[in-house]
Amino acid sequence: MSVLVVGSTALDSIKTPYRENPRLLGGSASHAAVAASFFGPVKLVGIVGDDFPRPYRQLYLRHRIDISGLQTARGKTFHWSGEYEVNMNNRRTLATELGVFEAFTPTLPPSHRDASFVLLANIAPSLQHHVLDQVRRPRFVVADTMDLWLNVALKELLRLLPRVDAFVLNDSEARQLTQEDNVISAVRRIHRLGPKYVIVKKGEHGAILSAPSGFFLSPAYPLERLVDPTGAGDSFVGGLIGYLASRSGPLEVNLRRAMIYGSAVASFCCQGFGLTVTTKTTRTGIEKRVRELARMVSF
Amino acid sequence: MSVLVVGSTALDSIKTPYRENPRLLGGSASHAAVAASFFGPVKLVGIVGDDFPRPYRQLYLRHRIDISGLQTARGKTFHWSGEYEVNMNNRRTLATELGVFEAFTPTLPPSHRDASFVLLANIAPSLQHHVLDQVRRPRFVVADTMDLWLNVALKELLRLLPRVDAFVLNDSEARQLTQEDNVISAVRRIHRLGPKYVIVKKGEHGAILSAPSGFFLSPAYPLERLVDPTGAGDSFVGGLIGYLASRSGPLEVNLRRAMIYGSAVASFCCQGFGLTVTTKTTRTGIEKRVRELARMVSF
Repeated sequence: MSVLVVGSTALDSIKTPYRENPRLLGGSASHAAVAASFFGPVKLVGIVGDDFPRPYRQLYLRHRIDISGLQTARGKTFHWSGEYEVNMNNRRTLATELGVFEAFTPTLPPSHRDASFVLLANIAPSLQHHVLDQVRRPRFVVADTMDLWLNVALKELLRLLPRVDAFVLNDSEARQLTQEDNVISAVRRIHRLGPKYVIVKKGEHGAILSAPSGFFLSPAYPLERLVDPTGAGDSFVGGLIGYLASRSGPLEVNLRRAMIYGSAVASFCCQGFGLTVTTKTTRTGIEKRVRELARMVSF
Repeated sequence: MSVLVVGSTALDSIKTPYRENPRLLGGSASHAAVAASFFGPVKLVGIVGDDFPRPYRQLYLRHRIDISGLQTARGKTFHWSGEYEVNMNNRRTLATELGVFEAFTPTLPPSHRDASFVLLANIAPSLQHHVLDQVRRPRFVVADTMDLWLNVALKELLRLLPRVDAFVLNDSEARQLTQEDNVISAVRRIHRLGPKYVIVKKGEHGAILSAPSGFFLSPAYPLERLVDPTGAGDSFVGGLIGYLASRSGPLEVNLRRAMIYGSAVASFCCQGFGLTVTTKTTRTGIEKRVRELARMVSF
């Protein structure tokens, strides 16, 4: 079944201790849509300016991503620029130029409203609401977020949580949202805010799925060299929903495997700047890492 | 087969934001020996002063720990006092009074020299060497350490590594030892220093075993409330070697399961001050958590 991905489409200028990379294709929707595309059809909804490079549009198309919902407006594409320290857990935003994103309203083409699997990738909660108002009867809705929205749009975010099946956030965001220092306690509190499934991303330490049947502890694929973790969380959740939409059978069983597929795709994302390595990946390459992860946790 | 545990035997005064607990039974050898005792016979080698409380000696005996190698010297038992912050990853040492430990030479009774499984729990590397000089033909030697020895006894520690089968340390120690920010790269470097097996403890994020056949990623048992993590690493390694010594069959296969048993015992340790909860645990309780962990990682 097809996946609808709504989120940001951006140009990312990423500085690390080793290199500078100006205006790479980025944004939560770009990473998530490419990650999901390895498993089946994907429809992307976002907005770009008239400066959006043609090769990036072609990149989406090469991944067979339906971009009929990608709006083009007069003005500049959302531009984010950031810098990583040697310890890549520490990131500093240098500039955020919203451009056309400032006036973005994610209007779904009629063909997108019957989507079964909906990923509300990281954007303002009010826009995530707006997408949900338009989809008819989705089978599974996943929402991702970031610390910014906890600070500036908490009320809207809290109103969103009962509307989604799965809520994804990272460990520090889970602590911030619940004022709980312990991640497991934080997860329990987040369930009470609405979502049946809570997924906490922990970067190199993997991710936790909390479901009615209990916890699933998903490992991260061990990498000896991290080139650029930008978009890893988006790739994780994109791979997750892409795999999920491609499977029949019990959702909760599939969701566990989907976490592993998400981890596998995210690991490729971290190995190159922006989408450079992810786009070179194949389904075969992903399956290989999933098998490796299976071996690494079996006892 | 029986396990020989050599390390510190101490009285721990532990302060957390919630409680103060003076002079609990602690020390690396105490935690490790009790943890190992759930799986088979354990011989403990350490030193205490003439102030060592009788009930603590009885505690060892209740766990069927052979304390014929526990020396008693005139003077005070090693006393450590520390304080945890709300975030229990942050610990501050308030006082370290070595007492009789200062003059400790771990002399093995003749009956201990044929030990097959040897755990060099956290003590000075020179003492760990001294133990290895006395054992005859151990089947498997595990050494644990702490950041202090990286700072004050690095040369001795580096000389120890080729003499052990498995070396255990936590992630920050692995980074410090190798000057590698990436844990996976750090592990590769540590192998080059000698040990066939490298085990990196990551607290609530579990532990990594690096073996000739590849990585094993062991989860930590998720706990909603951490009471006192003191000794969790010692319990982990104690449970690990205890389980390992109890099994026949291929060592590397057993070692993976041993990591899970170590995690299970360590989780009990964290749920109470000192050894209070660990000592109330049963093999049945440990097996239950191992089964739960198996479910939490299966996909």
